[in-house]
Amino acid sequence: MDRIDGRKPDELREVAITANFLEVPLSSALVEFGRTKVICAVSLEEKVPRWMYNPRQTGVRSGWLTSEYSMAPFSSGQGRMMRESTRGKVGGRTYEIQRLIGRCLRAVVDLDKLGENTLWVDCDVIQADGGTRTASITGGFVAVAIAIERLKAQKLIKENIYDEFMAAVSVGIVDGQPVLDLCYDEDSAAQVDMNVVMTESGKFIEVQGTAEKYPYTADELQAMLALAAKGVKELVAIQRECFDKVIMQERSE
Amino acid sequence: MDRIDGRKPDELREVAITANFLEVPLSSALVEFGRTKVICAVSLEEKVPRWMYNPRQTGVRSGWLTSEYSMAPFSSGQGRMMRESTRGKVGGRTYEIQRLIGRCLRAVVDLDKLGENTLWVDCDVIQADGGTRTASITGGFVAVAIAIERLKAQKLIKENIYDEFMAAVSVGIVDGQPVLDLCYDEDSAAQVDMNVVMTESGKFIEVQGTAEKYPYTADELQAMLALAAKGVKELVAIQRECFDKVIMQERSE
Amino acid sequence: MDRIDGRKPDELREVAITANFLEVPLSSALVEFGRTKVICAVSLEEKVPRWMYNPRQTGVRSGWLTSEYSMAPFSSGQGRMMRESTRGKVGGRTYEIQRLIGRCLRAVVDLDKLGENTLWVDCDVIQADGGTRTASITGGFVAVAIAIERLKAQKLIKENIYDEFMAAVSVGIVDGQPVLDLCYDEDSAAQVDMNVVMTESGKFIEVQGTAEKYPYTADELQAMLALAAKGVKELVAIQRECFDKVIMQERSE
Amino acid sequence: MDRIDGRKPDELREVAITANFLEVPLSSALVEFGRTKVICAVSLEEKVPRWMYNPRQTGVRSGWLTSEYSMAPFSSGQGRMMRESTRGKVGGRTYEIQRLIGRCLRAVVDLDKLGENTLWVDCDVIQADGGTRTASITGGFVAVAIAIERLKAQKLIKENIYDEFMAAVSVGIVDGQPVLDLCYDEDSAAQVDMNVVMTESGKFIEVQGTAEKYPYTADELQAMLALAAKGVKELVAIQRECFDKVIMQERSE
Amino acid sequence: MDRIDGRKPDELREVAITANFLEVPLSSALVEFGRTKVICAVSLEEKVPRWMYNPRQTGVRSGWLTSEYSMAPFSSGQGRMMRESTRGKVGGRTYEIQRLIGRCLRAVVDLDKLGENTLWVDCDVIQADGGTRTASITGGFVAVAIAIERLKAQKLIKENIYDEFMAAVSVGIVDGQPVLDLCYDEDSAAQVDMNVVMTESGKFIEVQGTAEKYPYTADELQAMLALAAKGVKELVAIQRECFDKVIMQERSE
Amino acid sequence: MDRIDGRKPDELREVAITANFLEVPLSSALVEFGRTKVICAVSLEEKVPRWMYNPRQTGVRSGWLTSEYSMAPFSSGQGRMMRESTRGKVGGRTYEIQRLIGRCLRAVVDLDKLGENTLWVDCDVIQADGGTRTASITGGFVAVAIAIERLKAQKLIKENIYDEFMAAVSVGIVDGQPVLDLCYDEDSAAQVDMNVVMTESGKFIEVQGTAEKYPYTADELQAMLALAAKGVKELVAIQRECFDKVIMQERSE
Repeated sequence: MDRIDGRKPDELREVAITANFLEVPLSSALVEFGRTKVICAVSLEEKVPRWMYNPRQTGVRSGWLTSEYSMAPFSSGQGRMMRESTRGKVGGRTYEIQRLIGRCLRAVVDLDKLGENTLWVDCDVIQADGGTRTASITGGFVAVAIAIERLKAQKLIKENIYDEFMAAVSVGIVDGQPVLDLCYDEDSAAQVDMNVVMTESGKFIEVQGTAEKYPYTADELQAMLALAAKGVKELVAIQRECFDKVIMQERSE
Repeated sequence: MDRIDGRKPDELREVAITANFLEVPLSSALVEFGRTKVICAVSLEEKVPRWMYNPRQTGVRSGWLTSEYSMAPFSSGQGRMMRESTRGKVGGRTYEIQRLIGRCLRAVVDLDKLGENTLWVDCDVIQADGGTRTASITGGFVAVAIAIERLKAQKLIKENIYDEFMAAVSVGIVDGQPVLDLCYDEDSAAQVDMNVVMTESGKFIEVQGTAEKYPYTADELQAMLALAAKGVKELVAIQRECFDKVIMQERSE
Repeated sequence: MDRIDGRKPDELREVAITANFLEVPLSSALVEFGRTKVICAVSLEEKVPRWMYNPRQTGVRSGWLTSEYSMAPFSSGQGRMMRESTRGKVGGRTYEIQRLIGRCLRAVVDLDKLGENTLWVDCDVIQADGGTRTASITGGFVAVAIAIERLKAQKLIKENIYDEFMAAVSVGIVDGQPVLDLCYDEDSAAQVDMNVVMTESGKFIEVQGTAEKYPYTADELQAMLALAAKGVKELVAIQRECFDKVIMQERSE
Repeated sequence: MDRIDGRKPDELREVAITANFLEVPLSSALVEFGRTKVICAVSLEEKVPRWMYNPRQTGVRSGWLTSEYSMAPFSSGQGRMMRESTRGKVGGRTYEIQRLIGRCLRAVVDLDKLGENTLWVDCDVIQADGGTRTASITGGFVAVAIAIERLKAQKLIKENIYDEFMAAVSVGIVDGQPVLDLCYDEDSAAQVDMNVVMTESGKFIEVQGTAEKYPYTADELQAMLALAAKGVKELVAIQRECFDKVIMQERSE
Repeated sequence: MDRIDGRKPDELREVAITANFLEVPLSSALVEFGRTKVICAVSLEEKVPRWMYNPRQTGVRSGWLTSEYSMAPFSSGQGRMMRESTRGKVGGRTYEIQRLIGRCLRAVVDLDKLGENTLWVDCDVIQADGGTRTASITGGFVAVAIAIERLKAQKLIKENIYDEFMAAVSVGIVDGQPVLDLCYDEDSAAQVDMNVVMTESGKFIEVQGTAEKYPYTADELQAMLALAAKGVKELVAIQRECFDKVIMQERSE
Repeated sequence: MDRIDGRKPDELREVAITANFLEVPLSSALVEFGRTKVICAVSLEEKVPRWMYNPRQTGVRSGWLTSEYSMAPFSSGQGRMMRESTRGKVGGRTYEIQRLIGRCLRAVVDLDKLGENTLWVDCDVIQADGGTRTASITGGFVAVAIAIERLKAQKLIKENIYDEFMAAVSVGIVDGQPVLDLCYDEDSAAQVDMNVVMTESGKFIEVQGTAEKYPYTADELQAMLALAAKGVKELVAIQRECFDKVIMQERSE
């Protein structure tokens, strides 16, 4: 059975990652998963959050990496959303997503080697059609990887500070069938909705699977994990291509 | 190798569920997972949230179930916490947890049969030693099940509105070993931290597994899921015992 | 004429104080005035509020004692209340009550002998049936007295830092008759509502008497003060019994 | 022993009430207790608060009277204060005072005869030297009394809706001596601080007596209440003079 | 004397307007004034703000147009800015700018002909190098003009609802010389900073000129106004070109 | 054609400035433009805002001057307004006005000579009938000038720290005619609304002209600027008279 947009069950949407979309931040990437578009930008702040200055700590201090996620008011196809700054508070969904992004990126970056600096990873959704959190993680990692190369070039850090590439993709069960990379209309109709964040070598960083309509079986879980592994592999290939082009060019300058 | 508190890897802490801890709410339960203590209370509000009144809807309206989670300022063994009401905003962790609790309980309750009512499930942690969210879901379900019996007795609803019991438990990898139901000290040291919410028949409602220190393999994932299944089975037995006693007594009155 | 719950005009509700209700805080007590239940917990913070660091001060700095009061959303018999953290601000009534509790406890504790520490007294109402502020003060004092014994045992303070026990009780005029310790239904119908905080030796710490329906005469004021004195005397006896048992046991350990 | 400003223990500061200080509100008065200056202004809103629309109510609805209190940032002799609007929240002391003012004024006004209207009594302190809450109540009552005359003249209400005049004054114990109407320097040094709100005929509306430094005896309480009665009598005379002049003039127009 | 970036005093930076940058909103444009980049997006909401429902109004209700302005945290060359949603409040500068944008656009649009609808004009700065408010107005107008064409095509409005094109540009005095369209470095050093919003026919919509370092003379004011007129004329030409291309293409579809 | 209140087009309302309206702040003035009444008060804070402590700075630090503007809830003739402290946030209009007042006053004061101090200029509107921002600037300058004299007398600053007097006035086009100093009713009906802040010698500090109903021509702009120059000249004469009287008296003491 065909999917709503004609894809096969195990097929990603068209994915594009445009590095250096902006000139001002340390690094930036515009990531597109189909119609979903997210600006990922990395900034360096030469200090760490106050809660890290605990008295128990001695010796060299580690760095920090954190993320903020935001949906532009015009990004949703379901009508204009009120800005969180106007409402005066950040919503629960936003908190949940930005905590996820930061946690996943920290899982692959060795903060001990970052020095007493914070990497801010802003993920600003300018168009949303499902999968904004997985696009944010996938694009955010590319921006982080480029930022690290630039910090190395600036001698701010000495060596590479992550082991593997990583990416994120959504899987789910729609009309009883496990599918990869759900668009908004599929997501709204899904019986199960799962986000999987994996490394290039196939290890798990985060698995979040929610029964939206009814509980799912162990077999369904395995089927979704297999789809996710395939999707992440393809995403990492796209990340690598984008990253290599940028770095090759910068090294040649 | 023994765990920090002498338990075996697949052993729950001492779990107790005391129903009817309070007289005022529709139903209540004090749930204890070791030193972790959570008051779960269910209140009925005879309306549904405003966002449910969409113009697209016709015919009989469904009900709603939502949850709020709060840690008392004195609940943590790590020193007094500032109240969220005093800070003037609910933190990201709180949002994330109360969204999880509500989502999981809604996955087993048939809201269409609840009428135009909202069930509020408050989970107030009065002592925290790890696993507050899994204790909240486990105790919260008992309180919801008792509340439903009382609504049936009051003829506010006609039939049972859930299929199965459900419970939640944490699993993780500590010192390289998969373990069940982590206490705070284990949780702080865990390499992987996972919360699993399952039904009595062994289906998944929510799986959330986070690599805290390094990514985990597919084998580690399977080992943790197996531990969780064992834990949930034991928790449901304790839930059933508590529930049956309360309901038997109420029916006899 | 009998009262709504059968008590005599000068009769307290059943009062119980359960010390060590929790294991984590410095001290704790569950206090019950009839159906009203409040968890009182004392925490030590090893600093004082910023406003106390004024430049005018020289020599040894004094300590501080402060209180926070909160009603759980499920505590009221009049339907679920919205959480103050969800509303994003603490209400006027809460401020008024927690200022009262802190002020009264500070009136008997010699803060100069506390060192540069703050005692936080959290009063969390888990069930409300009138008199939550007087129950909070009465139970809060027991928790403070136990906390002080423990700080003495830890050599953090050298000597006793309060002179007398103290307790609080409500009095009022209901259907023209002065009565002691009003429950919610009486409170709602009262013509005058007064809270009196007194020491064991019968001195006043706080008198707050409000004409709810019509102004009251000097004679009515005297009658209420007499009832309050009787009530406080009985409450102190219950406090002493609870306190002595705890301290005797701890000294014997 | 003479007081800090040369007054006798039972002597008020110079008190002045200037009605019609502003032209725009329904009524207004500038009240001065020595250097303390408060603008009291009454506005009519032709509705009542939402919480009054309860379903239990039948028949004619009553009106409401409420108060807001604010200290201008430049009002204090102790340096500029941060505006509460800038801080983003109303402080506990402000809440406590404005609840007191509203409660006391409501105790003498028959809201049932006000119709479905709200009287807003704003008390804006433009200079503070102790006694701002008692000045607010005393001046606020004059503004309310004038407002009621005007509503009668406009036929919005039919008859007088209060029985008696009322006023408020502070008393306290300074250097062991009971004194009337404390200025800021006395207030800061007081052992006991009490606010008393009474009617013209000598009945109590509110008594609030706080032991600031040590508990006070029943005799001290009586001495303070006697001073307060004297002070209120004198304040009502000043209120009457101001009120009569305004009303006479308006009736002659 | 040459300017910091080599421009002549009366020369605009390179200006580009890319319409249809996004697919989801009613209309959108990416506007660039040199390195300054702003996403302008127009959304339709089928109602008007609540304050417009005043009882004085009879007959057909008018529509509304409003704007929100936001700087992305990574947009500034002066380091990452804190998000206003995270700070919990919208800053004074943001309010001032979005009020300006809305007011200027409303000055040329005939809201009476819009029906009971609101046009939301979001201006999200993704890169900032001076002139973000003038770029927002200039790009915002193009997006509004395209939106109006689409509403006409959808028969939601019947006729054109604006008379003229309009655009905005900054002028100022830098090193004693009047210059057009200041970049960030010029703006920081300017003695006078002025924003001028004009119609295609040369009429003024808004003039805001601020003496940053010292007051300016009437002659300096005239010189700046002349530069602004030249700049606006050139900007309208660029707007027209962009607009015509889009509309021609849409009409041909 | 006569204006609504009988004035000629180029005629100010009756203007009065009463210095020393309060005793507590460093300086104060009550300014009246017709029925508009604003209390302007200057306070000294012996530090500067935190953002001024930047690491780039060396040598002697400059001072700061800032303003806060507030409308009392009873100040408007259009019914009681909600307090911004009660709403929990400062509105956009307030921000815009207080930023304007601070910016204009800073333009004439040499902050380098103020030392590391902040002058707070509070402008509290107690009655509003149009022109509250221009009255605030005009009265605020007098209060600042008096404050500077007092700081000189206290040897806190050594010399005069402003060059010229300055004042502000509104101009506009009402019924097609340029008019000076609009009252509320004129302001509501104005086609163009402009605020002009000028120095005694006729230089511009701020020009803000908004087309409320339709764009205005260059000729209309010039006509309004001419009216403003006349108004400012008259306002400075009133400022000088008030200032001279106060200073003469203080020097003679």
